[in-house]
Amino acid sequence: MTSSDISKLAPPSFADIQAAAKRIAGAAVRTPLLESQFLNERVGGRVLVKAECLQRTGSFKFRGAYNRISMIPEAERANGVVAYSSGNHAQGVAAAAQALGIPTTMLMPADAPAIKMANTRAYGAEVVTFDRFTDNREEMGEALAREKGATIVRPYDDPGIMAGQGTIGIELAEQAREKGAEVDAVLVCCGGGGLVSGTATALASTMPGVPVHSVEPEGFDDTARSLIAGHRVENDPAARSICDALLAPTPGELTFKVNSQLLASGFAVSDDETRRAMAAAFEYLKIVLEPGGAVSLAAVLSGRIDAKGKTIVVVSSGGNCDPAIFAEALETR
Amino acid sequence: MTSSDISKLAPPSFADIQAAAKRIAGAAVRTPLLESQFLNERVGGRVLVKAECLQRTGSFKFRGAYNRISMIPEAERANGVVAYSSGNHAQGVAAAAQALGIPTTMLMPADAPAIKMANTRAYGAEVVTFDRFTDNREEMGEALAREKGATIVRPYDDPGIMAGQGTIGIELAEQAREKGAEVDAVLVCCGGGGLVSGTATALASTMPGVPVHSVEPEGFDDTARSLIAGHRVENDPAARSICDALLAPTPGELTFKVNSQLLASGFAVSDDETRRAMAAAFEYLKIVLEPGGAVSLAAVLSGRIDAKGKTIVVVSSGGNCDPAIFAEALETR
Repeated sequence: MTSSDISKLAPPSFADIQAAAKRIAGAAVRTPLLESQFLNERVGGRVLVKAECLQRTGSFKFRGAYNRISMIPEAERANGVVAYSSGNHAQGVAAAAQALGIPTTMLMPADAPAIKMANTRAYGAEVVTFDRFTDNREEMGEALAREKGATIVRPYDDPGIMAGQGTIGIELAEQAREKGAEVDAVLVCCGGGGLVSGTATALASTMPGVPVHSVEPEGFDDTARSLIAGHRVENDPAARSICDALLAPTPGELTFKVNSQLLASGFAVSDDETRRAMAAAFEYLKIVLEPGGAVSLAAVLSGRIDAKGKTIVVVSSGGNCDPAIFAEALETR
Repeated sequence: MTSSDISKLAPPSFADIQAAAKRIAGAAVRTPLLESQFLNERVGGRVLVKAECLQRTGSFKFRGAYNRISMIPEAERANGVVAYSSGNHAQGVAAAAQALGIPTTMLMPADAPAIKMANTRAYGAEVVTFDRFTDNREEMGEALAREKGATIVRPYDDPGIMAGQGTIGIELAEQAREKGAEVDAVLVCCGGGGLVSGTATALASTMPGVPVHSVEPEGFDDTARSLIAGHRVENDPAARSICDALLAPTPGELTFKVNSQLLASGFAVSDDETRRAMAAAFEYLKIVLEPGGAVSLAAVLSGRIDAKGKTIVVVSSGGNCDPAIFAEALETR
C-alpha cells in the first residue's frame, strides 16, 4: 500500500471503535485505571494511570492487532497475516493471530534481540529475517503477502488498528466515571500515533472537550512539532533514546490526519525523566513500565503539564522491559 | 488482650466476610486476577495471580485494617487506633484510619527503615518508637490504648482483620468464574495466617472442595509444620529470610484455629526460589512483588505443587519492595 493509498483511507469513527470494543471483549484485558495517594500528593493533584502493561502481550498493541485481524474476511483468513516489527507490534500481532487460529509471518531484522524473536515464535509466528541495511522490509512484506494471499497488518496507519487502540478511550472514560473523577487532560505515549489517534477519537465522544496530548521522547517529538508546523515533519536521524517503542521517524499519514484535528498539543521528555517515571511507577503503583510506556507519566512528574489541583489521566502503554534497563531506572530515583 | 482472651473469640463466618466486602467496597481496590500465556506455558498449566500489590498501600493489609476500623463504634472513633508494626500492616492501618478520619498511633521499632516511618507518617499516623531489645511493644501498646481510650488493631489475630482479608476469597472466585476457570488449588502467602485463614473461610463457601495451601519462606514454615503437628509450633529464632513481611515466630492463635481445619497443607520455598518468582512476575505479568508477596508464585514455579494440566490461583500479597532487593532479584533469572 503506497502513501497515496493510505491517504484515501477513512479514519475510524467512534462507531468503529465501539465495534472494536465488542470484538476484543473477552480476548483483551480491561486493564485497570490505577491510582496512588502518594503519587497524587507528589504532584499536588490526581493522576490516574491506564496500565496497558497489564494487557495481553505486555502492551496495548494486542488491542489493535486483534481488532484488525478479526476484520479479515473468513475466506482470506487461512492465508494468514504478514507484519514487520521487532517490538510490541510483533508480539501483539502474533498473539492475536494465534488466538484467532490464523498463521503469522513476521519480518524481523536479523540483528533483533534474540528474546524478541523467541517471544514472537512462542506466539506461533514464523519469523523471516531481513538485513536492516540492505533489504527494504516494506517491499519484502508486500512480496510475501502477495505470494501467500496474506493480509498485511500495519503497526498504526490502518483504521482497524487505530480503532482497536481507541478502545482504551472508551474504557478509561468509564473507569474515571466509576471513580467520580472529572478529568482535566489525557496524556498518551506516541510513536507512529496509532494509540493516541484512536484514543483521542474515542475521547471526543466519551469525554468531549477534555484536551488530549501526545507525549514523545526528546529527539523523537515529530508529532509535537508536526502539530505546530501543521504538516508532518521528520526527526533528526542522529537522534537516540532509550524509548525503543517510540522511535518512529515521522507521524503516520492517517494517524496525523486525526491527531492534527484532535490533539491539543504534544510534549517531549528526556530519557532521565523517563527513567524517573519508571522508578515512580515501581514505587507508587507496583507496575513495570518499559521506557516508551513511561513517557506519559514522565510528562506529569517533570511538570510539562501542571497537575496541581487537576485530574490527569496518563495512558501507560507497555511493560516489556529489559531487566538491566529497569534496574538502571531504579537507581536514578 | 491476652492469649486466653483471643482463644474466646469466634473466627469470622462467611457472612462476616460478605459484610466486610460491603464495608470496603469503594475504599479498597478490586485487584485484578492476572494471567500470562508464557507463564502458563512455562508451568504446563494455568496460573491466575490475584495481584494484591495493586491494592491501596501496596498490600492486602488495607482490606483487613479498613474493615476492622469501620467496625469501631461511633462513640469510640475519636479516641483513635493504636497498632504496632514496621511493615505493611502499619501502612494499611494508617491509610485506612486516615480514610475514615480516625487518628492513628503507630508503635515502630526505633531502628525501623526511615522510608517505612516516613510512609506511615505520610498516611497521617503519629509514630511512637520503641527499643526492640528492651521494650515490650504489646505492653506499650496496651498502655497507650488505655490512656487514650483507643482501639488496638492487631495484625492478624482479630476476626475483623481476618474477615477483611477474606474478601479476597470472594473476589477471586468471581474473577475465576468470569474467566471460565475451574480452579484446582489456591496458594496463599502466610505470615501470622490472617490472609490465608480469611481467604480459606471465604473459599469454603465460594469454591467448596478446592484445596487451599499456605506458602511460607523456608525457616519460617511454622504454619506448615503446625498443620502436621496438629498444634502451634515455633520457628528457630536463628532463621533468616528476605521475606520481611512473613517473619512471624509462630501461627496466630485464632488464625491457626481456622487454618488447622481449612487448609490442605503448607509449602515452604527458599529465598532463591522467591527471587526467581519476583523475576517471573516482572517478566510475565509486569507487576512488582516484594519477596513476601512472591512466595505463592514461587511454590508453583519451583514445582512444590504440580501445575501440569491444572489451574492454580496464587494470591500475591504485596509489592512494597526496596529497589536494591528488586534489582538483585532480576539478576537471578
